[in-house]
Amino acid sequence: MAYPSAMRMSRLLLRTLRDAPADAEVASHRLLVRAGYIRRLASGVYTFLPLGLRVLHRVTEVVREEMDGVGAQELLLAALHPVDLWERSGRTITMDDVLIRVHAKGGEFVLAPTHEEVVTATIATEVDSWRDLPLAVYQVQTKFRDEARPRYGLLRTRELIMKDAYTFDVSAEAMGASYRDMYDAYRRIFARLGLAVTPVEAASGPIGGDVSHEFMVASEIGEDHFARCSSPDCGWAASIEAAPQLAEGGDCPRCGAVVELVRAVEAGHTFQLGTTYSAKFPGATFNDEGGQELPYWMGCYGMGLSRMVAVIAEEHHDEAGLCWPESVAPYQVHLLALGAGRSPAVAEAAEGLYAELAGAGTSVLFDDRDASVGVKFADADLLGLPTQVVVGAKGLERGVAELKARATGAKTELPLDQVAAAAKAGPPR
Amino acid sequence: MAYPSAMRMSRLLLRTLRDAPADAEVASHRLLVRAGYIRRLASGVYTFLPLGLRVLHRVTEVVREEMDGVGAQELLLAALHPVDLWERSGRTITMDDVLIRVHAKGGEFVLAPTHEEVVTATIATEVDSWRDLPLAVYQVQTKFRDEARPRYGLLRTRELIMKDAYTFDVSAEAMGASYRDMYDAYRRIFARLGLAVTPVEAASGPIGGDVSHEFMVASEIGEDHFARCSSPDCGWAASIEAAPQLAEGGDCPRCGAVVELVRAVEAGHTFQLGTTYSAKFPGATFNDEGGQELPYWMGCYGMGLSRMVAVIAEEHHDEAGLCWPESVAPYQVHLLALGAGRSPAVAEAAEGLYAELAGAGTSVLFDDRDASVGVKFADADLLGLPTQVVVGAKGLERGVAELKARATGAKTELPLDQVAAAAKAGPPR
Repeated sequence: MAYPSAMRMSRLLLRTLRDAPADAEVASHRLLVRAGYIRRLASGVYTFLPLGLRVLHRVTEVVREEMDGVGAQELLLAALHPVDLWERSGRTITMDDVLIRVHAKGGEFVLAPTHEEVVTATIATEVDSWRDLPLAVYQVQTKFRDEARPRYGLLRTRELIMKDAYTFDVSAEAMGASYRDMYDAYRRIFARLGLAVTPVEAASGPIGGDVSHEFMVASEIGEDHFARCSSPDCGWAASIEAAPQLAEGGDCPRCGAVVELVRAVEAGHTFQLGTTYSAKFPGATFNDEGGQELPYWMGCYGMGLSRMVAVIAEEHHDEAGLCWPESVAPYQVHLLALGAGRSPAVAEAAEGLYAELAGAGTSVLFDDRDASVGVKFADADLLGLPTQVVVGAKGLERGVAELKARATGAKTELPLDQVAAAAKAGPPR
Repeated sequence: MAYPSAMRMSRLLLRTLRDAPADAEVASHRLLVRAGYIRRLASGVYTFLPLGLRVLHRVTEVVREEMDGVGAQELLLAALHPVDLWERSGRTITMDDVLIRVHAKGGEFVLAPTHEEVVTATIATEVDSWRDLPLAVYQVQTKFRDEARPRYGLLRTRELIMKDAYTFDVSAEAMGASYRDMYDAYRRIFARLGLAVTPVEAASGPIGGDVSHEFMVASEIGEDHFARCSSPDCGWAASIEAAPQLAEGGDCPRCGAVVELVRAVEAGHTFQLGTTYSAKFPGATFNDEGGQELPYWMGCYGMGLSRMVAVIAEEHHDEAGLCWPESVAPYQVHLLALGAGRSPAVAEAAEGLYAELAGAGTSVLFDDRDASVGVKFADADLLGLPTQVVVGAKGLERGVAELKARATGAKTELPLDQVAAAAKAGPPR
C-alpha cells in the first residue's frame, strides 16, 4: 500500500488526551484513546483515527504477506448472509446469542460474525475436482458480534475487523497438512507482530470440528487461562477447556513437572473442521481420482486484526505511553523540533532532516507544532513511534541531533548529516 | 499493497462460465460473473472472488493515491451507528427507505449507508480551532442500502464498498477551495480508471447543501440522464434534476446551440454541504482568529468502489469479454502455453517466461492448465488482461512468441529473449 510516508503534526488529525475515558479498564484501551488512535462511537463500536488506521493497515499487511506466503488466495465475502444458510448449519441456534439479525427488503439476513457457511456454499459452486485441491482462501473483512458486554476497547467489540482463512482438502491427512501450514504461518505472524504466543490445544466449541488451537498471549488482563508446564524445557500447554482435569499445581502429563495456570488473551484460533460444514451444504464435494464424490475436508483460521492492535499495545507500552514494534508502527520516526519558533537554525535543521527522511522513504511524523518541549516529549512518548529524533538548539551548537529508542530509552547523538541514515536503520541500541 | 504478482491458473480459484446468470441484464454483470470475478450471494449482495478483489483493490489504490495527493487523511468509521445520530440529522425520516435498522444488545443502530452524521460528530470532538482547518478525511468502507430493486450486478447493491471523503473549512470560500481540490482529484481518478466522465451540476437531494456535482459516464445502461450542449466547443452540461426546464432539442443556456439528453451512470457525487450538518451537531464548531465560535463549512464526496468495478467493465469490454485498462487489471500479462502437454519445448519456454516476468515484477497470470488452445484463448479474452503472451510450438520453431493487446487486437511477434521486457512495457500498439 502506498502510504504517504511523511506527515506534519501541524496537519495531522490528532488530539492527544491527558485523561483516559472512564470506561477504560486496561492500558491498551487507555493509551489508544489518549494517544488519539481510536475513539468510541458506541459501546463496542470504535472509530480508527489516522494513526490507529495506519497500525491496523500495517498489521493487515503482515497478515496478508504470510497468508499469501502459504498460497492462500484473498477473496471478499459479504457481511449480509441469507439466514437460511445459517439455519442449514444449525448456528442460528448455537450462536444465537451473538447473531445480529437484519430484516431487509430482500428478506432475512444475519450480519455475519464468521463465514464458515458462506465460504462453504461459495466454494461448493466453484470447485468439484480433486485437481483443484488443496485450496486455501482468506479475507480481511468487518464482522459483527452482539456481545453482551463489550469491554477493553478494541479487545471485545460489536464491530470488528478479522482475517479469516479457510482450507479445503481431499482427506483428513491433507487437511492436517494444510492446517500445519496455517499453524506455522500464524506463528510467523505473531513473531513479526512482536507477540509471544503459546499455541494451546483447545475446545472447538460452536465452530465445530475435532482439532483446534488457541494462540494465547500471557497477559494480566486476559479473560482466559491456559495450563502450561512450569519446566521451560517441556513446552506442554493446553487450554483449561481442553484439559479440565488439570488444576494448578498438578502434574504435567508430558514430563510430570508442576502445572501452572496462566492468564492470557486469545490472539488467534484455528480449527480442523473435517466435514462438519461440507456435509451440510449441497455440492460442497469433490470427485476424487476414482470419480467418487466426497465432501471437502475443511479448516478455518481466525485472527482479529482490530483486536490485534489492542493486544500489541497491551504488550508494548510503559507508563508514558505506547511503544510500537517497528513492524506495525504508524511511522518509524518521530522527528521533534524543539523551540523551532525561537530558533530559525532549529527550524531549518529539522525541516532539512524531514525532507531527507521523507526523500529516503523512511516514514516520519514531524512535530512541527508551536508547542512546548514538555508537550512534544510527552506526546512523542504517548504516541510510541520506535525512533525519536530530537533537534534542539543546544545540540545544534555542536552540530548534532539526538536519536532515542522509544522502547528501551537507548540514546545516541549523531552529526546532523548521519541522522537520516541512522534513523532509517532503526532505533539506537 | 504487496500482492503476489504471479499466479498459475492451475492454482487460481477460478471457474469461468459459458452462460451468464438469468438475472444479468447488462454486459458488466454478465461478464464479471462469467469470468469468475464475482458471484451473487443474495439479491444485491456479492462475493468478490480473487480476480475481482484484485480489480477492486487496484481501483482502491488509485483512489487512495489521489485522496492522499490532496492531503486527505484516511480514517475508518464504523458501520453500526447509534440511531440517535440519525434522528438528530433528520435522516431517519428522509432516508428511511434505504436505512437498515439493527436492534442489538447495545441499543438501536443504523447500518450506515453514508457517514455525514458520524464524521461530523467525530470531528466535533477532535477539532476546535481555525488552526486545524482546512481538514480533509476519507475512508474506504462497506456501506449498506436497503435498495428496493438491486440490479445490474455491482451497479446497484445492498452491500457496497465506497470511498467517502469529507472536508471541513472555516468559511464558504474556503469550502469552495477544498471542493475544487476534490473535484480535480475526482477528474484525475476517473481519467486514471479509464472513464470519460462529464461532471454535471446536480440537485443535492436528501444529502443537503447547495452546490453539487454528479460525475456521469455516458452509457446505454444508465438509469439517469443528463443534458449537454450539442456543440463540442461549449461543454455545458447539467443534470435533469438541476435544470428541469430543459427539454431535448431546447437551447443551451450558455451558447444557444441545441441541447441533447444523454443516458448515463453516476460514477461519483460531490456536495458542498455548508453548515447543514455542523449546525445540528454539538461542538461541530471552531474558534476563529477572533475567538468567535462558528460551525464548520463542510463538503462530502462519494464514490462507489465496488460499483466502479462494474462501470469500468461496462466501458471496457467487447463481445468476447472484458478489456481492463492497465491501471486496474488484476494482472498485466496473461501468459498462455499452448499444447505444453504435448511439447516439452513449449512448457520449458513458457515456464522460463513466467519466471522472467515474475522476477521482473511484472504481474502475470500463467495459463499452465492442461486445456485446449480454444479454451485458453476464450478464457484469456473473457478475463481481459491487457497483454496476452502466447507461446506455441510453431512460433517456438522460429524462436518467437506472440504478444497481443487484448483491447485493440494489435499483435507482434518477438524473439523469446525480448518478450518479458516488451510485456512489462505494456500491450503492443
